[in-house]
Amino acid sequence: MQLHQSSVAELQQWESELAREYAAHQAANLNLDLTRGKPSAEQLSLSDALDGILGGNFKDEDGNDVRNYGTLEGIVSARRLFAQFMQVQPDEIIVAGNSSLTLMYQTQEFAMYQGLPECEAWSKQGGPVKFLAPVPGYDRHFGVSQHLGIELVPVAMNDNGPDMDQVEALVAADPMIKGIWCVPRFSNPTGIVYSDSVVERLARLPKIAGKGFRIFWDNAYAYHILDEDAPELADIFALAKQFGTADNIYMFGSTSKITFAGAGVAFLAATPANLKEFLKHVGWSQINPDKVNQLRHVRFLKNMDGVRALMKQHAALLKPRFDAVLQQLSGLNNLGMASWTEPRGGYFISVDVLPGLAKQIVKMAADAGVKLTPAGATWPAGNDPQDRNIRLAPSVPTVPEIVKATEVFVTCVKLASVRQELAKRS
Amino acid sequence: MQLHQSSVAELQQWESELAREYAAHQAANLNLDLTRGKPSAEQLSLSDALDGILGGNFKDEDGNDVRNYGTLEGIVSARRLFAQFMQVQPDEIIVAGNSSLTLMYQTQEFAMYQGLPECEAWSKQGGPVKFLAPVPGYDRHFGVSQHLGIELVPVAMNDNGPDMDQVEALVAADPMIKGIWCVPRFSNPTGIVYSDSVVERLARLPKIAGKGFRIFWDNAYAYHILDEDAPELADIFALAKQFGTADNIYMFGSTSKITFAGAGVAFLAATPANLKEFLKHVGWSQINPDKVNQLRHVRFLKNMDGVRALMKQHAALLKPRFDAVLQQLSGLNNLGMASWTEPRGGYFISVDVLPGLAKQIVKMAADAGVKLTPAGATWPAGNDPQDRNIRLAPSVPTVPEIVKATEVFVTCVKLASVRQELAKRS
Repeated sequence: MQLHQSSVAELQQWESELAREYAAHQAANLNLDLTRGKPSAEQLSLSDALDGILGGNFKDEDGNDVRNYGTLEGIVSARRLFAQFMQVQPDEIIVAGNSSLTLMYQTQEFAMYQGLPECEAWSKQGGPVKFLAPVPGYDRHFGVSQHLGIELVPVAMNDNGPDMDQVEALVAADPMIKGIWCVPRFSNPTGIVYSDSVVERLARLPKIAGKGFRIFWDNAYAYHILDEDAPELADIFALAKQFGTADNIYMFGSTSKITFAGAGVAFLAATPANLKEFLKHVGWSQINPDKVNQLRHVRFLKNMDGVRALMKQHAALLKPRFDAVLQQLSGLNNLGMASWTEPRGGYFISVDVLPGLAKQIVKMAADAGVKLTPAGATWPAGNDPQDRNIRLAPSVPTVPEIVKATEVFVTCVKLASVRQELAKRS
Repeated sequence: MQLHQSSVAELQQWESELAREYAAHQAANLNLDLTRGKPSAEQLSLSDALDGILGGNFKDEDGNDVRNYGTLEGIVSARRLFAQFMQVQPDEIIVAGNSSLTLMYQTQEFAMYQGLPECEAWSKQGGPVKFLAPVPGYDRHFGVSQHLGIELVPVAMNDNGPDMDQVEALVAADPMIKGIWCVPRFSNPTGIVYSDSVVERLARLPKIAGKGFRIFWDNAYAYHILDEDAPELADIFALAKQFGTADNIYMFGSTSKITFAGAGVAFLAATPANLKEFLKHVGWSQINPDKVNQLRHVRFLKNMDGVRALMKQHAALLKPRFDAVLQQLSGLNNLGMASWTEPRGGYFISVDVLPGLAKQIVKMAADAGVKLTPAGATWPAGNDPQDRNIRLAPSVPTVPEIVKATEVFVTCVKLASVRQELAKRS
């Protein structure tokens, strides 16, 4: 039965069946949670050997005693390993503390208030500073900019990345647009991978932008594949070097969803000129990152083969969970009520429901004991103008819990959609 | 022989003896370092059990899985332990990452640009923002303010703390003075402890200050005593509660010189209203501090008895080093060339040489293979107007190395002083 092709009588019949189904869910006193893109305890346990792995040897390969002060840029062995991870040279990366979000905040803060190697700070260029925000996107990215007084300009997110026609037109017209937020592989929340063409156009973008333009390339899910044949991401830094725009790229990564989510290491990859400027500023607020934890990570992960082997173990835990969601969502096939992504990696499935229903569906699910990410969270200031995007994060619950939670979600989508259609017809 | 009472002939004789002594030091090809207030490898090894102490148990006492995301304010067991450490209640402290300097930077940044619970941000109050800097003081404190665009106003540091007559007069006269930097126990670099009367006057200070005044109370050496009977520090927070100024105090501490210098945990103690405001801002730049390391610290230190026992082991390593410096410095007794502090705790000995000679002496020592902290480092922007303060940090070298380094230093002080006196007489 397709929503728009049903008669009012059919819809009424459907509504009463769905209402009974929903009431049954409510009566079951569920307590399920699909809100946060965080690893499960099983995933975290894959890295338990981190604690104690140093075995009393606190010296890095160059003799650096990681227990003491110093080495703001991170230890050499970690810079070499994570340079390979980020596909850059060791002098093109610094390794920091447990949060790549902090690195994004700091780079944006310094660009906003302190200055950049090639020009004065954004805030001193006369006029409100703006940033492009592909939507739906990651709420915490948007929060960084907003907290620093930067205005977010939403641009559409397509299946192959941000809408580059729109991006280029905006950037060419307004030199106060100083950057763009990107999660290029398994984007949060849609799970898409930027196409080669989008990456190439992004690498050229600084050529038409104002002074001090920066692409914030948060490659948070670079190795977080669910399928061996998931699409690869083009190398933006190599392209940018070719186009003379390498200084306009900040690339971020971390081991947060590789080892311990709250106690990994994060890194910033960029040209040596950008890193030198960053260290100059960040050195006023800290002596060094936690180098002991950096050395733990080097000893535990060993090399990129170690990283990939660990990510396969994660995939083995995550894939059945994603499959469970998609299996349940297939109950919405051909009803004209929703569309969703089938990501090949990352942590999220993004569902678009009928306009005006996202908030209501999230509330209905909550009332039946299924917590979902607040509707609108994927838009700047939490405001989805069409009120239609919902993010599902299935990493933490067990497969049976996910089946149940998604079943409830599907009931909510159907019931809300049928009621909306009935209201329209009356 | 006293410098000013010596005849020119005596001075010339002295100069040639000292020049020979200095040349002998130079010929010895020394490579000694008294620059940084950092622990020695022996001290760091006292805490090697930190790595591996969790033994696979990553749950805090309330069941919090410390490996995962969340708990921006720090884990409950760490808040309880470090609340005792800072003599506050558990809801008056948050536990953070490995750097208290970062907490100082963040609190100052938010006060400068974002706002405070009771008023708008300092930078929005119309007029250049100023901070009082007791001198000599800690260069990294001064750096935080300067990087944030805050002007430093030097005030004199006496044997009992900052010159409070001067402090009160300045604060009462200028509402744009928004705070004061304090290292109240074993001050960096003079090693003095603020007297009860100074602490009480500081606790009252906000009553005569402008809006949003904050005392930055960096109690970095609270437990870092060299002598069991070292003077205690009055409880500024208790006094401030009495005077109604508790919201004007930010207190900082860390385990940097207790466990691993570069990989400890830091904390901010303040009123719940201040902490709430802080978390609101800092939450835009991070999900959580490294809670695994917090739990390691709780399991390792156990309680305040554990902290004190560990600090006694540190003192056993530090005390002979300080004694070695003081023993050598006694060679300058009654010469009219220098005065110095005899600290009962902390990491530094502060030497005042004759005006105009500090830079020269530091250079002479360097030329003889003894690295000292750059002269002026203890003043805002590295500018000691009298060019006379030199900071000695004897924690890292061995006792024989310290004896040798201080011997060289003493020769440099004498030679520079005699030459200056000779130049005056000619």
